[in-house]
Amino acid sequence: MAFGWIDEQADARRRAGLVRTLRPRPADSPLLDLASNDYLGLSRHPEVTEGAARAARTWGGGATGSRLVTGTTELHTELERELARFCGVEAALVFSSGYAANLAAVTALAPHGSLLVSDAGNHASLIDGCRLARATTQVVAHADLEAVRKALGTHEGPAVLVSDTVFSVDGDAAPLAALAEVCRERGAGLLVDDAHGLGVLGDGGRGGAHAAGLAGADDVVVTATLSKSLGSQGGVVLGPARVIDHLVNAARTFIFDTGLAPAAAGAALAALLRLRREPERARRARAVADDLHARLTAAGLEAVRPDAAVVSVRAPSADGAVRWAADCRAAGLVAGCFRPPSVPDGISRLRLTARADLTGAQIERAVRVIGETRP
Amino acid sequence: MAFGWIDEQADARRRAGLVRTLRPRPADSPLLDLASNDYLGLSRHPEVTEGAARAARTWGGGATGSRLVTGTTELHTELERELARFCGVEAALVFSSGYAANLAAVTALAPHGSLLVSDAGNHASLIDGCRLARATTQVVAHADLEAVRKALGTHEGPAVLVSDTVFSVDGDAAPLAALAEVCRERGAGLLVDDAHGLGVLGDGGRGGAHAAGLAGADDVVVTATLSKSLGSQGGVVLGPARVIDHLVNAARTFIFDTGLAPAAAGAALAALLRLRREPERARRARAVADDLHARLTAAGLEAVRPDAAVVSVRAPSADGAVRWAADCRAAGLVAGCFRPPSVPDGISRLRLTARADLTGAQIERAVRVIGETRP
Ligand SMILES: Cc1ncc(COP(=O)(O)O)c(C=O)c1O
Ligand SMILES: Cc1ncc(COP(=O)(O)O)c(C=O)c1O
Repeated sequence: MAFGWIDEQADARRRAGLVRTLRPRPADSPLLDLASNDYLGLSRHPEVTEGAARAARTWGGGATGSRLVTGTTELHTELERELARFCGVEAALVFSSGYAANLAAVTALAPHGSLLVSDAGNHASLIDGCRLARATTQVVAHADLEAVRKALGTHEGPAVLVSDTVFSVDGDAAPLAALAEVCRERGAGLLVDDAHGLGVLGDGGRGGAHAAGLAGADDVVVTATLSKSLGSQGGVVLGPARVIDHLVNAARTFIFDTGLAPAAAGAALAALLRLRREPERARRARAVADDLHARLTAAGLEAVRPDAAVVSVRAPSADGAVRWAADCRAAGLVAGCFRPPSVPDGISRLRLTARADLTGAQIERAVRVIGETRP
Repeated sequence: MAFGWIDEQADARRRAGLVRTLRPRPADSPLLDLASNDYLGLSRHPEVTEGAARAARTWGGGATGSRLVTGTTELHTELERELARFCGVEAALVFSSGYAANLAAVTALAPHGSLLVSDAGNHASLIDGCRLARATTQVVAHADLEAVRKALGTHEGPAVLVSDTVFSVDGDAAPLAALAEVCRERGAGLLVDDAHGLGVLGDGGRGGAHAAGLAGADDVVVTATLSKSLGSQGGVVLGPARVIDHLVNAARTFIFDTGLAPAAAGAALAALLRLRREPERARRARAVADDLHARLTAAGLEAVRPDAAVVSVRAPSADGAVRWAADCRAAGLVAGCFRPPSVPDGISRLRLTARADLTGAQIERAVRVIGETRP
């Protein structure tokens, strides 16, 4: 049968205990959420949900076409202007997802004959971008400056270093300022994915690139998502106007994709405006992460010191991590569970996210549950 | 400078007259729209926009995480159940875009050592899926049954034929029933992208695969988008439950992407329920397309006979197409303008879309403007 081979793979997965299943959540879950990427707690903020509702009423349920045909509304343009202003760059371009933004930026900035140097810990969407690009890709060890310098040194012609600003699994930050220096020495571009930095790092949540003094530089391009700190859906590329113009003309996931739904644009815009008025949300998310890390460590757990709002806790095994997360859930706490094949280093862990709106009591309860259910 | 090569490409584009620019539209445009893919006119239907607004209020501005972590709400599950039921398949899986759904389906159904046979007219997202997949890809001439038979005949091991059901540029339909037969002869799977078929073709808009009697077959997988007939944003893969389970476990654009925003899920669900109660919308979209084609032809224009709701009109040149579309716009009509590099055959055209809610007077006016502005 045509798809018969699927059953063999499914059996292998079952034997290895690696089957993934969807777990639909109700609107009013009583569980304590330490797994979502809603870092600033804005996704359910009334201004954000009203921003979505108003945009849907004003503009319709969808953008109705690709951005170059009928899919650019004045709302898209306003969101792009505000994102660029907030992040301190010349221009911004909004996509239907962060994944699409990364595919666009990587492929359009890596012409035939060029070199992409990619950190081994990069997000799947950056990796897929490298696979799709016409360039040669060289993967370098995680956060290894010397390896980057060496990789860039061997190449003539355009080169781009690609890295997450905050790595999604362990929550560690890339050494951005140093990476930018290496890139400049070699005349290479720097493309960073600030999905987990925007809204959390930098002055008032302006992001990892801003914090590293790279905002507005003509050799730096930043991507981000509207689906984490901004509590919505969508992605964005931020950078020099010439780079953005180039994407409009050359990026396939821009040209051949329907524009972001107005409701998502409206929600992201409302979240951005709220963050601008309440810059302390960013600091609060970092403080919650530090608190969480300190308490977990005090409880004898092996947690990675957070550079942003992700706190990663080592699990003894893939099985152990799954059981741990299940036991947390039974005790009222939702924690992320990362294990092979979705961790680059094969190490399973619980992944906790610090939300700006977590209370001290909630943090305490979370740490207690995690400690008590420890495998 | 790092991105200096971009300027050379921009100059070349300017010299060739191929610069693309975004044209933001206001909420209350007085222009007559024959360019969007809102085939059933549902994007601004009050039930659809209220569906979006209600979902945002109930569930928040975003899904808050990937589908396997916190990004599956009961609303996602309900939408998947209703889409599967409507299209007559076992199961459905919703994505953040049709683009992401296609990347997922193509890559996950084409393991290392397998063969992908891909129609030369396929959408960019299917092409990118083939590029990302670990399989070998063989591109066959557009709608060429014999070429498909030959390509499949040379391969041992899993093979999948990939095709649009309705091709987005010319609006012509693939010979689905015949393709399915060839696939079955060879034991190959059939993966079809029904982006322009869902809501338009088949009984009550159940789509191209349903119309060809392929719904529910165990060797057929259908992808579609929620961004055209359903007036929202998002994508879906429809097929046997084992295929859907496989995607949950293996498709990178499912696992590593934030779930579709609740507002988009709510809008799509509302549109689907409206279409179920008003099945004549599908027939009306087809009738408008036929009427449009007949009148254009009567006016001496070279239009492709539509198989669904897209009507393509040949332009004499890329320049001519651009001027034609601009002149239409000046006369109050928005028409799509497709030209290299976004047409596979190098032929420039106006691309018109028939919406179910166009009136006879609007169709007449559109044809008059197109005739009068003809280059
Ligand atoms: C580092 C990183 N980049 C990109 C993405 C993709 O963004 P989106 O989910 O908005 O498509 C994610 C997560 O989903 C991410 O963690
Ligand atoms: C044939 C076809 N497939 C897939 C897509 C992608 O769908 P979406 O825009 O929802 O990402 C489109 C159009 O955008 C399309 O025309």
